[in-house]
Amino acid sequence: MNKLIYVLNGPNLNLLGKRQPEIYGHETLADVEHKMRARAAQLDLEIEFFQSNFEGALVEKVHEVRDKAAGIIINPAALSHTSVAILDALNTFESPVIEVHISNIHKREAFRHHSWVSARAEGVIAGMGTLGYMLALDYFAS
Amino acid sequence: MNKLIYVLNGPNLNLLGKRQPEIYGHETLADVEHKMRARAAQLDLEIEFFQSNFEGALVEKVHEVRDKAAGIIINPAALSHTSVAILDALNTFESPVIEVHISNIHKREAFRHHSWVSARAEGVIAGMGTLGYMLALDYFAS
Amino acid sequence: MNKLIYVLNGPNLNLLGKRQPEIYGHETLADVEHKMRARAAQLDLEIEFFQSNFEGALVEKVHEVRDKAAGIIINPAALSHTSVAILDALNTFESPVIEVHISNIHKREAFRHHSWVSARAEGVIAGMGTLGYMLALDYFAS
Amino acid sequence: MNKLIYVLNGPNLNLLGKRQPEIYGHETLADVEHKMRARAAQLDLEIEFFQSNFEGALVEKVHEVRDKAAGIIINPAALSHTSVAILDALNTFESPVIEVHISNIHKREAFRHHSWVSARAEGVIAGMGTLGYMLALDYFAS
Amino acid sequence: MNKLIYVLNGPNLNLLGKRQPEIYGHETLADVEHKMRARAAQLDLEIEFFQSNFEGALVEKVHEVRDKAAGIIINPAALSHTSVAILDALNTFESPVIEVHISNIHKREAFRHHSWVSARAEGVIAGMGTLGYMLALDYFAS
Amino acid sequence: MNKLIYVLNGPNLNLLGKRQPEIYGHETLADVEHKMRARAAQLDLEIEFFQSNFEGALVEKVHEVRDKAAGIIINPAALSHTSVAILDALNTFESPVIEVHISNIHKREAFRHHSWVSARAEGVIAGMGTLGYMLALDYFAS
Amino acid sequence: MNKLIYVLNGPNLNLLGKRQPEIYGHETLADVEHKMRARAAQLDLEIEFFQSNFEGALVEKVHEVRDKAAGIIINPAALSHTSVAILDALNTFESPVIEVHISNIHKREAFRHHSWVSARAEGVIAGMGTLGYMLALDYFAS
Amino acid sequence: MNKLIYVLNGPNLNLLGKRQPEIYGHETLADVEHKMRARAAQLDLEIEFFQSNFEGALVEKVHEVRDKAAGIIINPAALSHTSVAILDALNTFESPVIEVHISNIHKREAFRHHSWVSARAEGVIAGMGTLGYMLALDYFAS
Amino acid sequence: MNKLIYVLNGPNLNLLGKRQPEIYGHETLADVEHKMRARAAQLDLEIEFFQSNFEGALVEKVHEVRDKAAGIIINPAALSHTSVAILDALNTFESPVIEVHISNIHKREAFRHHSWVSARAEGVIAGMGTLGYMLALDYFAS
Amino acid sequence: MNKLIYVLNGPNLNLLGKRQPEIYGHETLADVEHKMRARAAQLDLEIEFFQSNFEGALVEKVHEVRDKAAGIIINPAALSHTSVAILDALNTFESPVIEVHISNIHKREAFRHHSWVSARAEGVIAGMGTLGYMLALDYFAS
Amino acid sequence: MNKLIYVLNGPNLNLLGKRQPEIYGHETLADVEHKMRARAAQLDLEIEFFQSNFEGALVEKVHEVRDKAAGIIINPAALSHTSVAILDALNTFESPVIEVHISNIHKREAFRHHSWVSARAEGVIAGMGTLGYMLALDYFAS
Amino acid sequence: MNKLIYVLNGPNLNLLGKRQPEIYGHETLADVEHKMRARAAQLDLEIEFFQSNFEGALVEKVHEVRDKAAGIIINPAALSHTSVAILDALNTFESPVIEVHISNIHKREAFRHHSWVSARAEGVIAGMGTLGYMLALDYFAS
Repeated sequence: MNKLIYVLNGPNLNLLGKRQPEIYGHETLADVEHKMRARAAQLDLEIEFFQSNFEGALVEKVHEVRDKAAGIIINPAALSHTSVAILDALNTFESPVIEVHISNIHKREAFRHHSWVSARAEGVIAGMGTLGYMLALDYFAS
Repeated sequence: MNKLIYVLNGPNLNLLGKRQPEIYGHETLADVEHKMRARAAQLDLEIEFFQSNFEGALVEKVHEVRDKAAGIIINPAALSHTSVAILDALNTFESPVIEVHISNIHKREAFRHHSWVSARAEGVIAGMGTLGYMLALDYFAS
Repeated sequence: MNKLIYVLNGPNLNLLGKRQPEIYGHETLADVEHKMRARAAQLDLEIEFFQSNFEGALVEKVHEVRDKAAGIIINPAALSHTSVAILDALNTFESPVIEVHISNIHKREAFRHHSWVSARAEGVIAGMGTLGYMLALDYFAS
Repeated sequence: MNKLIYVLNGPNLNLLGKRQPEIYGHETLADVEHKMRARAAQLDLEIEFFQSNFEGALVEKVHEVRDKAAGIIINPAALSHTSVAILDALNTFESPVIEVHISNIHKREAFRHHSWVSARAEGVIAGMGTLGYMLALDYFAS
Repeated sequence: MNKLIYVLNGPNLNLLGKRQPEIYGHETLADVEHKMRARAAQLDLEIEFFQSNFEGALVEKVHEVRDKAAGIIINPAALSHTSVAILDALNTFESPVIEVHISNIHKREAFRHHSWVSARAEGVIAGMGTLGYMLALDYFAS
Repeated sequence: MNKLIYVLNGPNLNLLGKRQPEIYGHETLADVEHKMRARAAQLDLEIEFFQSNFEGALVEKVHEVRDKAAGIIINPAALSHTSVAILDALNTFESPVIEVHISNIHKREAFRHHSWVSARAEGVIAGMGTLGYMLALDYFAS
Repeated sequence: MNKLIYVLNGPNLNLLGKRQPEIYGHETLADVEHKMRARAAQLDLEIEFFQSNFEGALVEKVHEVRDKAAGIIINPAALSHTSVAILDALNTFESPVIEVHISNIHKREAFRHHSWVSARAEGVIAGMGTLGYMLALDYFAS
Repeated sequence: MNKLIYVLNGPNLNLLGKRQPEIYGHETLADVEHKMRARAAQLDLEIEFFQSNFEGALVEKVHEVRDKAAGIIINPAALSHTSVAILDALNTFESPVIEVHISNIHKREAFRHHSWVSARAEGVIAGMGTLGYMLALDYFAS
Repeated sequence: MNKLIYVLNGPNLNLLGKRQPEIYGHETLADVEHKMRARAAQLDLEIEFFQSNFEGALVEKVHEVRDKAAGIIINPAALSHTSVAILDALNTFESPVIEVHISNIHKREAFRHHSWVSARAEGVIAGMGTLGYMLALDYFAS
Repeated sequence: MNKLIYVLNGPNLNLLGKRQPEIYGHETLADVEHKMRARAAQLDLEIEFFQSNFEGALVEKVHEVRDKAAGIIINPAALSHTSVAILDALNTFESPVIEVHISNIHKREAFRHHSWVSARAEGVIAGMGTLGYMLALDYFAS
Repeated sequence: MNKLIYVLNGPNLNLLGKRQPEIYGHETLADVEHKMRARAAQLDLEIEFFQSNFEGALVEKVHEVRDKAAGIIINPAALSHTSVAILDALNTFESPVIEVHISNIHKREAFRHHSWVSARAEGVIAGMGTLGYMLALDYFAS
Repeated sequence: MNKLIYVLNGPNLNLLGKRQPEIYGHETLADVEHKMRARAAQLDLEIEFFQSNFEGALVEKVHEVRDKAAGIIINPAALSHTSVAILDALNTFESPVIEVHISNIHKREAFRHHSWVSARAEGVIAGMGTLGYMLALDYFAS
């Protein structure tokens, strides 16, 4: 059976491709999901895709997948910088976590340089556009 | 057709006029809405009013109004100091944003002096009581 | 009539006893509720028990119990460190608040040493395991 | 008799409209004074207008108007960030003070985010252009 | 044989009940000792009580009880914030330590928020008045 | 011939006795001058008295008295915390300087705890009311 | 009956006049006591003199004189910068406290600029040599 | 013609696979080079590989490749945290730069969280082991 | 017609050559003016010389010369470290500004290391004595 | 006559060899004294050995030996980090001081990295176990 | 014999005129050397010119010229901000040092505002382009 | 066979005895090497001596001796404060490291108080002159 990878996206990512293209590009989150599904199939992975603008909903999604997921790819977006609750939820999860940021958060405002989740994640990919999600899949396939 | 202005209110403002009147006065949020509607009519503006105690709900309301609103008046209350997600949501919105605080947050505890939203707002009004909301309307009429 | 005490629990505590037992022990939140009810009965107290992973839901629960509760026992968990909204909600409540942390947050990472709620609470108990909840009940009985 | 409001302006504001229009716009201070007089008349207020590039002169103007003014509207400009003496002068004045900044100081260099006067003012308006002065008048009329 | 618990009190606590009752209440340290002895008897614990205004004397008391005590309840008072020597002494002790503060140190001046001892203690109780000492006894009984 | 001592007073001290008596008491600056002259006569000292709300005027007064004064008693008031120019002026003066603050600046807001002048003054007297000026005279007599 | 003033001196002041005369001068502590007794007699004051190198002994001396002293003159020396216990002891005392430093601590190493006691003292005198003790007596006489 | 990518490695990476395998794994730098060449061939890229323990040598290598390279993949190792010279060298280079760290520097000592190079790099990959180098190649192929 | 350069000097520089020669040397400001006039003549420049101890006067001088000066040479002295108003005045001026310090401010007290004006000046010369003024003239000639 | 060296030990060192051997080893303070006496005899030095848990006692011991000791070897233990009084006492002593720490304080918690005494000591030895005391003797012999 | 002045240049300056002309202009380092030689000849000075991208090479060059040079003109470039070794090397040199920066480092990123070398240099010239080198020569001629 | 100890010296130490004798004394590095060889022979140790002004050379020397040395004595000089690369190199070495500073770095400028290497070294000796190297040898002999 294929390994199941959850892809969690935080606030405002539902607008991906529809806002600030100079930072985030033109692909939508549905485009990303589509590309990832294609890629996952090649890599014998299965993915579940989830987006929420609520910290609590992301926490509960982590709880829900704790026993099912072989890994989590998470782009916590703005909650990267403010949510200890998501960090604590991920601390209850024992398989690898890859954190993805579409833009290079280190080149943006200082408050975006720190992510609570980075202290928990196995890997962090930043600034590589939506390709970052694909590379994270490669990580789980490798 | 009248310009449509959204008035967004953050956590605990549903208790306005019912708690700590020495800081926040005696008017309720319904009173504020009532006054604003009257004033808006005079100014050929239309308003929609929204309050939530959930960061996620405020983010989604901003998304919903992105194409409809000619402006946003927002009092993020406690989330001013902790929510990057609302800042990011507002960053996806292209018309003016006016931030209103009923009390002068600069005269209160140090942690209330910094607002994430201020880095995005066209204007900030603090410490003018509920009149601040009215003045923000004037801004959109001018 | 017995005094009514609300016991509020923040994010991830629904997993209590199921995650990181080296930090949090083996009791579940249901076990805690059970023990507290037994103890409350002895002390002529009545308790209501609530857990949420949503900051907004905790804020609204505080609003709801403002006129009913003789006291609040709160373990804000990760939100201790990030939520000004819960602090503001508790500021609208006039009876005593006791803050409980199962682990000794002062012995953990530096970011867990500061709790917004501590500036509002009458008392703080940390590091005494789930016994902390029981001791908080004793406080309301005394 | 009409209430008398003093409008005090700090260093470099005598150049308003003549410098850096991308930040401060094209109106001169005389234009602002003119608009304010017209508006004040409608609101049954009287205004006195004063500008100085000297901290000491602003301090003495506050002393002079202590018993005459029903309120002070002050744009301390650069002195916002460096003058404790103006703060102390305003501390001797007992009617309301409204602080106005033409630009949104929170969006500019970090050293412009802190104003000594904000700790004294009843209200603060920033980033609304010269309209800020008009809204401050509305405050005194209300 | 009953477990022996030492109760150590730091500087100025000999004045308990005689100074600043708005912060510390009206009970004297002798009252606390009396209440604790009664409670300890019910819980099959034995207590020894000690107070000193000298850091060195508290250090030496910890040394003396290292092999005898089943636990230490300590209210280091002002030395909480300044004594590394007491922390080091407690680091030589292997049974549990519970730190008690009568007032909620987190609501007082900033320099009282940090306690060296908290990094060593199993549990911390603050702001529950002299009841805190009783709850600490309950901890050792449980 | 009697030694000549200059007494310099900074911004807002011209209002002494007329503002905030709970901090500064009821004596006016003229009262202080009167008392000092009487005391100086007893001590075979002569005094010159000066007050200005302008930093530049205080700097120039120091220049003027450099060759005449046997000592300077200075209460820089708000300029204590912001003026390096007065410090530099005093650095050109070779006889003793005594700094006086009517209130105990260490018990007030944090920004009042630091005075540039203290790094130059021989002595500092704070919190002893207008008596501080008299004690400073005693210093020059001794 | 004469008012009784206690003069408390902290660590190393027993060596006054015997060490580092370029900082502390040539008078011994006995000389200071002698001068103060003579001056106190003129002012109808009575003094008691005490020196200790132990923080605990200074704390207990404050306890002892709480009901007897009309005022305390204290030079906490090195403990100024490190003892919260002395601050807390003085907080239990209700008559005036004057803090004296022989040298101007603001001209020395940065760690000597802050004194815990200053937040409690009515007045602070620094840098006026042993004359500072005499001026403190004048304060109690006035 | 294939695009030419330079892979630059900083101090101590010549020991890769020979030291601290719990942090850096068992692959040597030669293994990494081998894998990258294979991968590059598939992607129609060409690579040049360089390692030095000298800041100056890395600076000069960047100078040398400025006109030849279509991109730089750099793992500055310890120099990430201390070298402004490498940052300045990269600032003279106009094609993309991808920064790779084998371990997740955000999970290690605080001084490793900041990298001067991140402010220049298009993308940053950390904590994905030597796979990070491969993913960086993918970036240049995409 | 010769280019007109204004030379502005801040507080205490009127005492140049008369105070602290170990820091500032023996030349007076008149000597400097004399030397500069001679040098300017050689370079086909014209100079106007101005000194004030008042921040406001320096601000107004900048305003006055805005349309006349081809450049400003300014030694803000103590105001370098405290005046945002002079920075703002210079921000309204569009030709080059050269900042001169007679002493090397980087070798003196830490508070002299930062100058507000440096963020505006084209060039900064420090520590080269009064020669610095001459070199600044060379800059305008080149 | 042999040179007399005093060896002073601070709080908790009386437990040396009896606590935390993973940090401090198995030798007792008596063992150290014994080894030092043997070594001193070889080097024609004489030693006096002293340990106290009281800051005041260490201060007074320094006073007592001021005229007798040719040098002081001091391990202030926890008081290294908190006692200015011991620093001031050592400042009254004119012969060399060597500071010894058994463990390498730079590898332990951050608060142990700073020692007040290091600013006075001629030399500092840390992390060399009890051998450090012997090497300090060698220093006095050389 | 002419005085010999060494001109030392740090990392990346070999690219001068070839990179980022908006910051550094179009002149090459060879142009600067050429201009300086011509000017030196007029001033009866002799110059030696050196550039390295290696901190160690700059340190050794300072050693080499210690007995030969009448002065050093140094532009440490990026090493200004990170090299204590160059500072220490210059501390072994006894003739004057002038530090030159082509751009005004105070207008660039915050980390460029501090230079280790400034604490040693007699003078500092920043932001005057390559003219800065010429002015430094004038200093040695004067 | 004798144990082999490497003695590594950082930048500017090749000038030892030739510069700043008030800080570093009159012995040259050759003198130190000579003394160490003599002492090593007595202790059945063998030493290799190395000095470089290049961080990279010191890193590579550590690599080279990793399998040969029974210990490293290192005086990183200025690189103590700036080199993470040397720390990382030493982290690949498994035998003891002793860090030596000739002067007491804690009595010098603040930036010299922190050494990256101290977090790795077993022991640190500072301020004991070149004797420190000898004592470090004793450590390896013991």
